Amino acid sequence: MIVVMNPGAAEEEIQEVEQRLQNLGFGIHRSTGENRTIIGAIGAPKEDAKEALEVMPCVEKVVIISQPFKMVSREYKPERTAFDVRGVTIGGEKIVVMAGPCAVEGAEAYILAAEEVKKRGGEILRGGAYKPRTSPYSFQGLEEEGLKIMAEAREKTGLPIVTEVLDHYSVEIAARYADILQVGTRNMQNFRLLRELGHTDKPVLLKRGMSATIEEWLMAAEYIMSGGNHRVILCERGIRTFETLTRNTLDLSAVPIARELSHLPVFVDPSHAAGNWKWVTPLSLAAVAAGADGLLVEVHPRPQEALSDGPQSLTPDKFSQMIELLKRVAEGVGRKF
Amino acid sequence: MIVVMNPGAAEEEIQEVEQRLQNLGFGIHRSTGENRTIIGAIGAPKEDAKEALEVMPCVEKVVIISQPFKMVSREYKPERTAFDVRGVTIGGEKIVVMAGPCAVEGAEAYILAAEEVKKRGGEILRGGAYKPRTSPYSFQGLEEEGLKIMAEAREKTGLPIVTEVLDHYSVEIAARYADILQVGTRNMQNFRLLRELGHTDKPVLLKRGMSATIEEWLMAAEYIMSGGNHRVILCERGIRTFETLTRNTLDLSAVPIARELSHLPVFVDPSHAAGNWKWVTPLSLAAVAAGADGLLVEVHPRPQEALSDGPQSLTPDKFSQMIELLKRVAEGVGRKF
Amino acid sequence: MIVVMNPGAAEEEIQEVEQRLQNLGFGIHRSTGENRTIIGAIGAPKEDAKEALEVMPCVEKVVIISQPFKMVSREYKPERTAFDVRGVTIGGEKIVVMAGPCAVEGAEAYILAAEEVKKRGGEILRGGAYKPRTSPYSFQGLEEEGLKIMAEAREKTGLPIVTEVLDHYSVEIAARYADILQVGTRNMQNFRLLRELGHTDKPVLLKRGMSATIEEWLMAAEYIMSGGNHRVILCERGIRTFETLTRNTLDLSAVPIARELSHLPVFVDPSHAAGNWKWVTPLSLAAVAAGADGLLVEVHPRPQEALSDGPQSLTPDKFSQMIELLKRVAEGVGRKF
Amino acid sequence: MIVVMNPGAAEEEIQEVEQRLQNLGFGIHRSTGENRTIIGAIGAPKEDAKEALEVMPCVEKVVIISQPFKMVSREYKPERTAFDVRGVTIGGEKIVVMAGPCAVEGAEAYILAAEEVKKRGGEILRGGAYKPRTSPYSFQGLEEEGLKIMAEAREKTGLPIVTEVLDHYSVEIAARYADILQVGTRNMQNFRLLRELGHTDKPVLLKRGMSATIEEWLMAAEYIMSGGNHRVILCERGIRTFETLTRNTLDLSAVPIARELSHLPVFVDPSHAAGNWKWVTPLSLAAVAAGADGLLVEVHPRPQEALSDGPQSLTPDKFSQMIELLKRVAEGVGRKF
Repeated sequence: MIVVMNPGAAEEEIQEVEQRLQNLGFGIHRSTGENRTIIGAIGAPKEDAKEALEVMPCVEKVVIISQPFKMVSREYKPERTAFDVRGVTIGGEKIVVMAGPCAVEGAEAYILAAEEVKKRGGEILRGGAYKPRTSPYSFQGLEEEGLKIMAEAREKTGLPIVTEVLDHYSVEIAARYADILQVGTRNMQNFRLLRELGHTDKPVLLKRGMSATIEEWLMAAEYIMSGGNHRVILCERGIRTFETLTRNTLDLSAVPIARELSHLPVFVDPSHAAGNWKWVTPLSLAAVAAGADGLLVEVHPRPQEALSDGPQSLTPDKFSQMIELLKRVAEGVGRKF
Repeated sequence: MIVVMNPGAAEEEIQEVEQRLQNLGFGIHRSTGENRTIIGAIGAPKEDAKEALEVMPCVEKVVIISQPFKMVSREYKPERTAFDVRGVTIGGEKIVVMAGPCAVEGAEAYILAAEEVKKRGGEILRGGAYKPRTSPYSFQGLEEEGLKIMAEAREKTGLPIVTEVLDHYSVEIAARYADILQVGTRNMQNFRLLRELGHTDKPVLLKRGMSATIEEWLMAAEYIMSGGNHRVILCERGIRTFETLTRNTLDLSAVPIARELSHLPVFVDPSHAAGNWKWVTPLSLAAVAAGADGLLVEVHPRPQEALSDGPQSLTPDKFSQMIELLKRVAEGVGRKF
Repeated sequence: MIVVMNPGAAEEEIQEVEQRLQNLGFGIHRSTGENRTIIGAIGAPKEDAKEALEVMPCVEKVVIISQPFKMVSREYKPERTAFDVRGVTIGGEKIVVMAGPCAVEGAEAYILAAEEVKKRGGEILRGGAYKPRTSPYSFQGLEEEGLKIMAEAREKTGLPIVTEVLDHYSVEIAARYADILQVGTRNMQNFRLLRELGHTDKPVLLKRGMSATIEEWLMAAEYIMSGGNHRVILCERGIRTFETLTRNTLDLSAVPIARELSHLPVFVDPSHAAGNWKWVTPLSLAAVAAGADGLLVEVHPRPQEALSDGPQSLTPDKFSQMIELLKRVAEGVGRKF
Repeated sequence: MIVVMNPGAAEEEIQEVEQRLQNLGFGIHRSTGENRTIIGAIGAPKEDAKEALEVMPCVEKVVIISQPFKMVSREYKPERTAFDVRGVTIGGEKIVVMAGPCAVEGAEAYILAAEEVKKRGGEILRGGAYKPRTSPYSFQGLEEEGLKIMAEAREKTGLPIVTEVLDHYSVEIAARYADILQVGTRNMQNFRLLRELGHTDKPVLLKRGMSATIEEWLMAAEYIMSGGNHRVILCERGIRTFETLTRNTLDLSAVPIARELSHLPVFVDPSHAAGNWKWVTPLSLAAVAAGADGLLVEVHPRPQEALSDGPQSLTPDKFSQMIELLKRVAEGVGRKF
């Protein structure tokens, strides 16, 4: 952290800042220029410290130099993180596709969908049992009933399952059934939920908040890791912008950046951002070309009957076509499929 | 809701859409134009229904005409909502100022701050006991200890207290101490928390999510009201944009719009958006001029010692100066102070 | 400007950076810390220089400390700029309202509007003769014919006139008729146009680009001032965000900030941002409360007949009501009307 | 266009709307529902018409159904547009890479860069002679001198050249030297410039405005096409969002969408959006995977000596590595290289 003093700062003001930095646990190093004094603060950056200093009238600017996250960073762990979920390696050389309907709406339909996903090349099954909906009057999910259906689908297909959790109740219940717990975009800064997940033994798929910077997203992962759970999967899913033809703007720059700053696996969910199945295939190909370790895609045998997110779901046939193209792009960039 | 069919839609496709609408509980009205058929769907709009129809290939567009919120709307309750909190009327003719430090950091300092707030014209005390922080390594609040300090300050000053809640634990505990429960910007779409608050008997101050549309904000209020708690205060606090000189962009257009669409009181928090105390006074004046029913302002006797949000806190003297100007602007727009 | 070297930077790399800074005209001051070397670069910041240094692999970060604008800044000219336009003082104690229809659509209607504006308290007449339209098939303005009508309205009412210019042709022609030349939001970074206006002798009303930061807006004013024209009026008119109920999000924080960073007068155009006349009055009051020196408002005697921007135009009666409230708010914040 | 009347609209109000629609050149079709009347307006949508109707108090909402652009659309021309520029086919099966330094800074360096681009697989040379800079004190380009250098580089390498134009002067001069004229992001809605380019016989590369919607971008292309110049290349280059790690957020969803809505070739410029050469290769691969017809990439033999945009320039070696990967991804998605 660098503290830039005002041009006219007096010696005693400078000393006051240095004292304050030392109280906050920083080592200090003063540099006296012709016009200004600059104080280097040695130690891990803290948002509290930046604020505490910026409020001092003699301070012009506080610049944070090192990144605020630790366990998430490449400095903490230079090699890429990879782990196994029921035989599927996440974060390895091979691209992993998680697929399935947005919500679990009934046993028969879900199991049919699961079988299609398996047949067409998906390796992990997705499905929502607890649904965060903007309206209190919309379908909110089958809850534990939905989880049971997912577990049954896993038994039939052998595919591990990933599902969204919303709070400590759903974490507790979902952890009994699911193989991976998902944090949705609206909960990326639900810090209590993140802490809770830091104490489970299930891998966590952490979606980026729709208005979160990449740095905030990595800090959310830090919350989970700092609780002891090191199996976090980052998932870019689009950010909120002024463009209205898409639901959200998929930020594929986030893929190489998150992989540069962090050792964690980076997945992409193109379905929610696009909001339209027609753009899911090109965006999935683009995600893999940009370096993504995997995808989270909505697939529904009969999208027109889905209670939620039908317009953005691929049919099994379209999903198969996408998988064929994905294989070729993955090979093109030196990945396996 | 209006369903616009594709130009070439066949009679049986139209009938399929009509059947689907009827199954979803809508009355229907077909209109056959030269090029297109348009089907009016009579009944309350539903996000599910829009999606279910848009996925049908014969449908070009689905347009929602009425607003998705009900109890929050002026149609549901044409007169403005006002209610009493320990003798202070929220939503009445009089502008109400909630003020105090961002976080409760210790008894002595907080009670000093509370006394200053009272002396200078604040009517409700703010203070954070549970703090949502972007870093797991930042100060997270004094929790119940902080609430006890706030209650003590209330006893000393007679001012009611408002504090943020994060989850069902903090709701349960805070409801024992606080007079108003606050939902922070990052939790505006924490639907479980909203439902929980719908079942308490405390008024709720609902901050707008930093990337939430006005409509989503009102839907979040609908969650609380639909649970039975009708005492909701809307609070605009800035949205995330590309501008970097401010922390967030205060959206004062949201004040007249929220007041036009809803009967609920609308407050403004200029401190978090500005991120700098220098801009808090002009933005507070602007908020009242735009029609706000009250303000939520950070005041700290010694901002340079605050552990969080010091740079945006007013000193008591600056707070007094602001109050004087507020009185005159409030009168200018026909409000009391 | 501060150049932060990488932790492991070698002595010769540091010297290379210092050499480069000196070649770019900076004085230098090296500060050797435990982990890093920091080089202070003394002199005016330059975007070129920042880029030239950031590309060097031994450099971690370049931080610009002083503002990039000069003539626009309070350091260059501490007292506020005020100037006279045909007897109306812009930037003085008194709030100035510029009003009129969006576009000049015909002599009779425009002169009627002008007379209403004068009668109701407007001091400067607005009107568009050259219209930038998103569609090539929309009405593009009456061009010189429109300017003649505006000049006639000035003769009848005595009010000075402000009109938009688009390129060197329209600058040349409009400068013959108008008293103030306006740069629209889409042209804020049309640097050729800005240079052209730097060489005219007419005051320039510079609208903020809808995706421009405050700093970029001030740099656009710097272009005009650096050409020799010091009579620039800044005009906030809303920025592009994700909110869809308003056309743009009026950023009233920009008012106190632009007034803090610059000596130039700051106006606000609430009509284009709101996109709906109902919100124009509260936003106008808010703008004046926030410290604006004046307003640019659309007024049309018969909004339903306007060829452009009818929905956001006030009728003369609504305009009168707004002026009454404005007087009281202006007095409240110590301004005249 | 569909006009939704207010629930209580009277017969005479409805007739007034119908009359107004007919005056505006629309055919009409009334549909009387239980609660509302809806009037279908048959004919091309017009922004003027929407506004003219929305201002009528009896109208609740006006919904535009068809797209506002014509010549740009797939309805106007279903087959994809492809054309030849000195032997290079733009918009064909083969991916085309335009590459070179951001600005022309001197003959020797530019010609060296040009030879490297050719040797490594670029097919068109880029270079800026007229530079739009946010500061009036930054390097503004070599102007005609720069164009002469580019023409010399074309002679030496045989590669066609593309360069940015800013106004009618630079169009006139650049058209004498360059093979493709480029419109920069800040000029995408400089409608005078677009009209000017509609009358030249040179292909135009139209960058998307950093805050322009896809629809506005296509409308800007419509301006050029409506002037008679049908050789327009769309170029996505990133939009402005809240994310600060990248200069702009590259919106790759715009690639499949622009290709679906329009027949024009779609290129991507990853260099300006990324702002850092490290992310240029993954984003280029992603762009081609998403369906882009070509790329515009910054390449500089010695980025650390570039006067502008050095940090985002690839060295020739990195460019070669990227080309190798591009070939494989292009083949993966069925394109040639």
